[in-house]
Amino acid sequence: MSEPPVETVDISRLSTEAADFESRLEALLAWEGVSDAEVQARVAEIIAAVRERGDAALIEYTGRFDRLKVTAMSELTLGAARLEQAFHGLPAEQRDALAQAAERIRLYHERQKPASWSYVEEDGSVLGQQVTPLDRAGIYVPGGKAAYPSSVLMNAIPAHVAGVREIVMVVPTPDGVLNELVLAAAHLAGVDHVFTIGGAQAVAALAYGTESVPRVDKIVGPGNIYVATAKRAVFGQVGIDMIAGPSEILVVSDGGTDPEWLAMDLFSQAEHDEDAQALLVSWDARHLAEVEAAIARLLPTLEREAIVRQSLARRGALIRCRDRAEAVTLINRIAPEHLELSLADPHALLPEVRHAGAIFMGRYTAEALGDYCAGPNHVLPTSGTARFSSPLGVYDFQKRSSLIHCSEAGASALGRVASVLARGESLTAHARSAEYRIKE
Amino acid sequence: MSEPPVETVDISRLSTEAADFESRLEALLAWEGVSDAEVQARVAEIIAAVRERGDAALIEYTGRFDRLKVTAMSELTLGAARLEQAFHGLPAEQRDALAQAAERIRLYHERQKPASWSYVEEDGSVLGQQVTPLDRAGIYVPGGKAAYPSSVLMNAIPAHVAGVREIVMVVPTPDGVLNELVLAAAHLAGVDHVFTIGGAQAVAALAYGTESVPRVDKIVGPGNIYVATAKRAVFGQVGIDMIAGPSEILVVSDGGTDPEWLAMDLFSQAEHDEDAQALLVSWDARHLAEVEAAIARLLPTLEREAIVRQSLARRGALIRCRDRAEAVTLINRIAPEHLELSLADPHALLPEVRHAGAIFMGRYTAEALGDYCAGPNHVLPTSGTARFSSPLGVYDFQKRSSLIHCSEAGASALGRVASVLARGESLTAHARSAEYRIKE
Repeated sequence: MSEPPVETVDISRLSTEAADFESRLEALLAWEGVSDAEVQARVAEIIAAVRERGDAALIEYTGRFDRLKVTAMSELTLGAARLEQAFHGLPAEQRDALAQAAERIRLYHERQKPASWSYVEEDGSVLGQQVTPLDRAGIYVPGGKAAYPSSVLMNAIPAHVAGVREIVMVVPTPDGVLNELVLAAAHLAGVDHVFTIGGAQAVAALAYGTESVPRVDKIVGPGNIYVATAKRAVFGQVGIDMIAGPSEILVVSDGGTDPEWLAMDLFSQAEHDEDAQALLVSWDARHLAEVEAAIARLLPTLEREAIVRQSLARRGALIRCRDRAEAVTLINRIAPEHLELSLADPHALLPEVRHAGAIFMGRYTAEALGDYCAGPNHVLPTSGTARFSSPLGVYDFQKRSSLIHCSEAGASALGRVASVLARGESLTAHARSAEYRIKE
Repeated sequence: MSEPPVETVDISRLSTEAADFESRLEALLAWEGVSDAEVQARVAEIIAAVRERGDAALIEYTGRFDRLKVTAMSELTLGAARLEQAFHGLPAEQRDALAQAAERIRLYHERQKPASWSYVEEDGSVLGQQVTPLDRAGIYVPGGKAAYPSSVLMNAIPAHVAGVREIVMVVPTPDGVLNELVLAAAHLAGVDHVFTIGGAQAVAALAYGTESVPRVDKIVGPGNIYVATAKRAVFGQVGIDMIAGPSEILVVSDGGTDPEWLAMDLFSQAEHDEDAQALLVSWDARHLAEVEAAIARLLPTLEREAIVRQSLARRGALIRCRDRAEAVTLINRIAPEHLELSLADPHALLPEVRHAGAIFMGRYTAEALGDYCAGPNHVLPTSGTARFSSPLGVYDFQKRSSLIHCSEAGASALGRVASVLARGESLTAHARSAEYRIKE
C-alpha cells in the first residue's frame, strides 16, 4: 500500500496478486464449529435425562447451570401477560423503535408467503402443492450478554407470519436476571409463552416435550456450543435451522464511500465477538490505506475496542484486488453472510453475485440497518454456507404437501408407464397396484 | 371386527375405541434411526481418511468394500457419453416409460420455481429477495438391490430444473455390476458425470472434494446407515436432504374402493423392506374385514411375499375409527409420508390435512403412480417428519439472498430506529454505523 497510516492497526493486508493469496485467504476463512467428544457426551446425557425425567430434569439442570433454586416449572414460565407488561414498561423511545422494527420485519416477511397451487391436466387429473404452517415452533434465545431483542423479532416474526399456531420461546436467566427488552420483543413478535430455561436441556425439552414444555416441530435460534450440539443431536426428531458460525461481513468498495463510514461498518461486525470476521475488498489501493487510517483513528473511540481489536487481528483483512471482476470472484468464493456493495452502481454487479446471505447495496445501506429494522431477516447463513442455504424466512415455518388426484383416464395412462418402470425395479406389487387402474 | 376372514393374516387390528389404542399406535409408529457409536467411529475415520488422502483413500475403500481392484479414479468415472449409451441401449418400452416419467417430473417441478422479487418503498428504498441455484449438487444412489432408476429421476431432475450448474452422481457398483437403467435415468435427468463409489467415502468425497471428485454444495439421496451417518456428519460443510426412515403409507378409505385395490396399495408399500409401514384407516368395519380377506387371498400371489408378510406383521395395521373426523385426527397425528384418501370426495377433507408428504386423492390415485410418473417428487419426509419438512423439490437446490438498497432518506429514517435498538443491545459500533447515515 502506498500510504501507510500513521497509527498501525493489527489486521491482515492481502493482495490477490501475491503468490500466497489463496492460502492466506483460506486460513482466514477457516472455521469449523466442531464440538469435542466431551461436549457431545455431556449433551447426550442431558438429552437422555430430559427425555426420561422431563420437568424434574429441567428443574435440576436449571438449578445447577443457571443457579435458580426453584421447585416447580411454573416458576420457570412466563405467560403472555408478563410479556405485555415488559413491553409497556419500556421507555417510549425503545418501545417505539422496537414496534417500528417489528412492523417493518412483518411487512417484508409477508411478501415471502408462498401460495398453494394446482393445475388440471387435459384428462382431468389434478396436480399441485399445498402449503401449510408448522403447528408449533420453538425459539431459542441466549441469555446473558448475547440476549438480543432484535433476534427475538427476527426468529419469531417469520413463524407468526407463516401462521404457526403456537410459538414457544426459551431463554435462560442465569441468577434470575430477566431482560425486559427481550420479553417486550417476544410480546411484539407473537410469542405465546416463555420458559426461562436454556442450554442443551431446553433444546431437549422442546424436541421431545415434558409435562410442562410442549413438543415443538422446529427449533430455531442461536446458542453456545452446548445448544448447537444439542440441536444437531435432535435434528430429525424436529427440524432445526442452520448451526451458525461467527458472524461475518464482506464489504466491497469502489473508493467512493467515506472511509470512516466503512471503518465503522467493519467495526459493527467485529464488535460481536473475537471470532467475528470483517473483510474489506477494493481495487483502489489509496482508498484501502485511507480506510486503514480511519480504523486506526476510530478504534480508541469504541466502547468494545478490545473485542474489535482482537477480531480484526485474528480474522479481519483489507484485500486489494485487481478490478471489479476479481471482486466478484472473491464474493462468490467467500459466499459471505453479509455483503455490502459500497458502490456507485451496485445493481450492475448484482446479477453476478451467486452466493451471499444478505446484500446491502449502495453507500447508505449500512449492515446495521438490516440487523435491526430494514425488514429482511438478520438470521443468515455463515461460514460460506450461503452456497447452499438461505436467510431464515417464512418458508422455514411452513412445509409443502404434494397433491395428486388422477382422473380415471389419467390413472389408466399413468398406470401403463408406472407398470413398466416398477417391473424394471422388480417391485411387482407397485406394478399390480398401478395395473388395477388401467382401463383396457 | 364382525366378520373374520377365512385365512388369517398376521397384522395388527386396532380400534380407536380400545383403551390401549394410543399406546399400541405409538409402539407401531416408533422409529428412531440411530447409528451406534461403532458406526459413528468408523464413519468418522473414513471421512478423515478421504479428507486427508483424497482419491487414494477412495480407491482403497472401494477396493475393500465393493471388491473393485482399480488403480486410478478414471476407472471409477463414467462420463456423459456412457450415460447416453445406457439410455439408447434400453428396450424401447423401458426407454419410452423412463422418458415419459422424466418429462412429467420435469413439468411438475417447473411449477415449483420461485421468482426473485423486490419492491420500492415511498422514500425510494428497495427491498427484495434474489433466488439463485446451487453451483453443484451431489446425488447419492444406492447400489445393489435398492438401485432405483426412479430415484435418480426424482433426485436429479429438481436440481436440473433449479439451474444447478453441475450435477454429480455417485453410485457404488459392488463387484463392478452396473445398472443400465440407473445410468439411463442419469442421462435423462441431466447428470453431468458419475463416480462409481459409495458409502461414507463417497459422501466425504462429495462434501470435501478430492483430486477427481468436485466438492458439491448439497448432497441428496438415500443410503444405508453408513451413508446416513456420514451425511449427518458433513451437514453444515454441505447441505443435505432429510435422513430418511423406512417408507410408509396411510390409506383412509370410506368403504367404496375395491378391497383388492386397497390390499395391493398396502402391499406396494410393504414390499419395500421389512421395516416399511402400511396402515389402513376406515370407519367401516365390514370394509376393513373385506380388505383383510383380500390381503389374505392375494398375499400368496406376490413375488415379494416374504418381505410383505414380515412388514405387515411388524409394522402394518388395520385401524377402525369412529368417523371421518377421527380419521382426520389420525392423519395429523401420524403425519404420514404417503397419504391415500380413497374417498368419494377427497377434496372435502383436504383443508383439514395439516401434515402429509404427498396426498393421493380418490380411488384411482394409487401411490405407485406417484412413485414413478405422476410428476411430484417421491422423495418425501418419513417417520412423522412431514410435521416440519417437505418433499424434495426445486427449492432444495436454490437459495435466497436478501436485498436491501436504502435511499438517502430511507437510511436516515432507519438509522434512527437502528441507533436506539443497537444502543439497547450495547452494540455501539452498530449504532454509530447507522448514525453516520442520519441526515439532521
